[in-house]
Amino acid sequence: MAEERIVTAALLVIGDEILSGRTHDRNIGAVAEHLTGIGIKLCEVRVVPDDEAEIVSAVDALRRRYDYLFTTGGIGPTHDDITADSMAKAFGVPIDVDARAEKILSDYYAGRGLEMTPARLRMARIPAGADLIENALSGAPGFRIGNVFVMAGVPSVAQSMLQKVTPELKTGPKLLSVSIPVNRPESEIADTFAAHQQLYPDVQMGSYPLLRDGRPAADLVLRSPDRERLAEAAETLMTALGLPTPA
Amino acid sequence: MAEERIVTAALLVIGDEILSGRTHDRNIGAVAEHLTGIGIKLCEVRVVPDDEAEIVSAVDALRRRYDYLFTTGGIGPTHDDITADSMAKAFGVPIDVDARAEKILSDYYAGRGLEMTPARLRMARIPAGADLIENALSGAPGFRIGNVFVMAGVPSVAQSMLQKVTPELKTGPKLLSVSIPVNRPESEIADTFAAHQQLYPDVQMGSYPLLRDGRPAADLVLRSPDRERLAEAAETLMTALGLPTPA
Repeated sequence: MAEERIVTAALLVIGDEILSGRTHDRNIGAVAEHLTGIGIKLCEVRVVPDDEAEIVSAVDALRRRYDYLFTTGGIGPTHDDITADSMAKAFGVPIDVDARAEKILSDYYAGRGLEMTPARLRMARIPAGADLIENALSGAPGFRIGNVFVMAGVPSVAQSMLQKVTPELKTGPKLLSVSIPVNRPESEIADTFAAHQQLYPDVQMGSYPLLRDGRPAADLVLRSPDRERLAEAAETLMTALGLPTPA
Repeated sequence: MAEERIVTAALLVIGDEILSGRTHDRNIGAVAEHLTGIGIKLCEVRVVPDDEAEIVSAVDALRRRYDYLFTTGGIGPTHDDITADSMAKAFGVPIDVDARAEKILSDYYAGRGLEMTPARLRMARIPAGADLIENALSGAPGFRIGNVFVMAGVPSVAQSMLQKVTPELKTGPKLLSVSIPVNRPESEIADTFAAHQQLYPDVQMGSYPLLRDGRPAADLVLRSPDRERLAEAAETLMTALGLPTPA
C-alpha cells in the first residue's frame, strides 16, 4: 500500500480579546477537531494581538512551514480589524476594495434595506490575487491567499467558512484513535504503558490525566492511521493492564 | 506620576491532545484572565505537540522575548510527558531526580499508603537550578527555571500553581476595561467608533461582534490603566452613539 503523504497545518488566532482573557477562544478546539477528522495534521497554534507587525511575522513563519495556515479574527468593519491589510503586507501585494466582495456586501445589505457605508465597505478590502470564502451567515466574506485561509473570529462563522473551503483542501491519512478509560492514577499504569509504546512504536500513545468521580484517573489514547494495527495495540494494552477486552 | 513599566508574558501550551482536538484547552483563557488581572500583559500564546525539538524551539523564542513564559502540560509520569527534559535541553542544564521533589512525592504517596515506583519517580525529574512550584492538589510539583514557569496541564492544577507563583511575579500597570454593549451590528457603529479612537489614541478600543437574541450586536471594549481617562472615553463614546449614560 502506497503511503499517503501527511498534510500539515497551523492555526493563527488573531485578537487582543483572547490574550486579555475577555473572550475565551472557541476556534482552536473546533478547527483542531475538524482538521483531524478530514486527515490534516494541526501542528501548531499561535495567538497574537491585533498588531500588524505581530500578525505579519506569525503569518510569514507559519505559512512557509506548513501546507496550510488558517487564521481566525480581525476581518470585521471596525478600526481594530487589521487582518486583511496585514495579510496583504505579509504577501507583499496591494489591497483595495474588491469588486466581488463589494457586490456580495451590497446585495447582503440591500436585502436588509440597509445602505453601504464606509465601515461596511471596509469589509470588502481583499488582498490582490485572493479568492473569496463565502460567509453563509453574515455576508462579509473571508479569503484565501496562497496557502492561507483567512476566516472570521465569530465561531459559528469560522466554522461555516471552514466547511466551505474543506472540499478544496488536500488531505492525508486520517488518524484514527481509540480512547481507553482507566480508573487508576497515571502513575500506576505508566510503566506498563511505556513498555507497550516500545512494542508498538508506530502507534502514538498518550495519557491524559483527569479526575473521575473525584478520583485520579486517566484516558489512554492510541492513534494510528492503520485500523487493524490500532485495534491490536489497544486490545493487547487492555490485556496488559488487566482490563476486560471487548468480546 | 512615574510610568510603571509594562510586564510581558507568553504562554506555551504543550500537548498533542490539544492539537488533535481531543481535549479542548481551558488554560489559555484562565491564564490570560489571571495575568491581566494582576497587571501582566499576555502578548502571545503557542500550542505545540509533545515533541522535544518543537518545545525547545518555542521555549527559546518565547523566554527571550518576554519577561515571563508560562507553560502547561507534559509534566506527568507517562512516557509522553517530556516537558521537564525538554526544558533542561532548552536551558542547557542537566536533569535528574531532584531530592526535594522526591521527598514531596514520597510523602504524598506514603500518606496514601502507596509505594514509590519508577513512573512516580519520573515526576521528580527537575532541571538543575530550578525552584519547585508547589502542587496543592496532586503532589507532583511544577518548577521555575529562569523566567519560565512550568505548570501542569490539568486546569485545576495549573490554576493552583499559578496562584502559588503569583506573589513572586513583578507586575505592571493593571489594564482596566469598560465594556459597552451595543444592540446594533458593528458596521453601523464602526465609523463613529473609529473617530472616537482618534480622539483617545491612548485608550485601546476594540469591538467584538456577537449575536444577541439572534441579532447582530457588539461589545465595545475600552482599555486603559488610567481610571478617569477610561471613564471619560466611555462616557463620551456612549453619548456619540446616542446611548444613555449612567447618571
